[in-house]
Amino acid sequence: MPAFPLSNLPRVATVREVGLRDGLQSLPVVLPTQTKLAWIDAAYAAGQREIEVGSFVPAALLPQLADTGDLVAHARRLPGLSVSVLVPNMKGAERALASGADLMLVPLSASHAHSLANLRKTPQEVVAMVGQMRAARDAAGSAMLIEGGVGTAFGCTLQGEVRPDEVLRLMQALLDAGADRVSLADTVGYADPASVSRLFGEARRIAGDRLCCAHFHDTRGLGLANVLAALETGVSRFDACLAGIGGCPHAPGASGNVSTEDLVFMLESMGIGTGIDMASLLALREEAGRWLPGQPLHGSVWRAGLPKTFHARPAVPA
Amino acid sequence: MPAFPLSNLPRVATVREVGLRDGLQSLPVVLPTQTKLAWIDAAYAAGQREIEVGSFVPAALLPQLADTGDLVAHARRLPGLSVSVLVPNMKGAERALASGADLMLVPLSASHAHSLANLRKTPQEVVAMVGQMRAARDAAGSAMLIEGGVGTAFGCTLQGEVRPDEVLRLMQALLDAGADRVSLADTVGYADPASVSRLFGEARRIAGDRLCCAHFHDTRGLGLANVLAALETGVSRFDACLAGIGGCPHAPGASGNVSTEDLVFMLESMGIGTGIDMASLLALREEAGRWLPGQPLHGSVWRAGLPKTFHARPAVPA
Repeated sequence: MPAFPLSNLPRVATVREVGLRDGLQSLPVVLPTQTKLAWIDAAYAAGQREIEVGSFVPAALLPQLADTGDLVAHARRLPGLSVSVLVPNMKGAERALASGADLMLVPLSASHAHSLANLRKTPQEVVAMVGQMRAARDAAGSAMLIEGGVGTAFGCTLQGEVRPDEVLRLMQALLDAGADRVSLADTVGYADPASVSRLFGEARRIAGDRLCCAHFHDTRGLGLANVLAALETGVSRFDACLAGIGGCPHAPGASGNVSTEDLVFMLESMGIGTGIDMASLLALREEAGRWLPGQPLHGSVWRAGLPKTFHARPAVPA
Repeated sequence: MPAFPLSNLPRVATVREVGLRDGLQSLPVVLPTQTKLAWIDAAYAAGQREIEVGSFVPAALLPQLADTGDLVAHARRLPGLSVSVLVPNMKGAERALASGADLMLVPLSASHAHSLANLRKTPQEVVAMVGQMRAARDAAGSAMLIEGGVGTAFGCTLQGEVRPDEVLRLMQALLDAGADRVSLADTVGYADPASVSRLFGEARRIAGDRLCCAHFHDTRGLGLANVLAALETGVSRFDACLAGIGGCPHAPGASGNVSTEDLVFMLESMGIGTGIDMASLLALREEAGRWLPGQPLHGSVWRAGLPKTFHARPAVPA
């Protein structure tokens, strides 16, 4: 064991805001488009440079995200912002290609049971679909990136255990099918730092930097400890939701993704540059309380405030 | 960087319950002695083997802890339970020696400003007092351990920065003055995993296993990430409060220490034995909600429940 176990961490990290997608899709409210645009602008002004603005899914299924096309149209005009959307099927992929988004995230659930319940496809069918998406992307001459997101990577509320070797196999299959990069998600909050360290360690050995992102839910309070464990394997991009919104359908009242403001606070406190200004982010978090009255908001640093000793590092584009 | 950064963690860890002291002293309620005895018994039945039951301070200052003597008298009859008390002065030390407690924790604040405000002594005067306590302990022929707890070790809400070299100097001074062991506390929630790794790494280099415990507050959400960072330096004893009770006088509504149930959940999930049964602990947590109506309770795992994949390890006396 090295003297200082944390001495080899990344010097910069990227926090990808997914509150507009993963957060809002789980809340029983439809945020007006104007409010979402204000959120995107404020996040951008605070220094966030990667935002997942919504999903291309039928509006009847997720009315909360029905304005995704409008959000992409607005967000892609912000210089240097990577605009991503979630896409569950070919129809969505076509809309994403037409929208001008920079990245589409294609979810695959490593849990067979969860995959059938949520996507109505087997994991292998999703892999095949990613191949078709890649062909469509290339045929369109688009530069849009395709990210395969392997969900329920640490277990599943339906089937329980998900085998790490199956997760790694599906991750490789996504890359082989044409995904530009992959990410791993603890969709239901089953991960712990030891399982994160093992799975991300193995996954990075296989995929290197093409394993580009970690997506943790804070359902059982381990979100930031899991981030730390992933950081130590070299991962330097993390999904997060403003105010930790989102929840978990299987755990009423539980929080959603790790909260953006707590995550940025942790990284910046550790000297890992995010390019994000904490004061602006906390102001946005306060705004979120007004936008979502009565909805459970999470996270801690907004309440306690920044330590006297907190010095934001010079903004580093991460 | 090793392939699996977390592969050298301790195999067992001790969670010391401090809710009856650090938690209750910050709440504006006086829990009846019978309720505290039920708490101690339930924690013991769940497998907890180290409990800080209170403080020997004037009842006029902390009426919440006025029954500490009765709690020690009860708790010391539980086989194998290490019963500790906090002691801020010689009068308290004499009461601790007479009580039959197994350990007394003597707090020293590394922040000069905080030390004067809270203890009305300079850090150096506390060091001298520990020398007197050691002499009194030895003169009494008592086996009671003396632990010097260095607080505000990561900064202070009054003076801001606290220099790590000053923390280490005071830690060594406590040992030289006769403390059997020492611990470091992030009294106000200013620590982050990087500062924890550096300070605990240095402190263990100096004190070895005589640096016996880490005490983290979850004020800004980094409590469990800080635990993970400390684990990686070899620390294997952590203070925690049932339901994260306690709060912070400088941050209304903020949580107190890391919550016992989330901490045990993290450790057991990682395969680190605590000897504590999660189901019993969660039942006790539910009880705490009835004991403390209207008080803010914290922590996450109680709400979401245990993962389907959670298998408690065989109880290991930690």
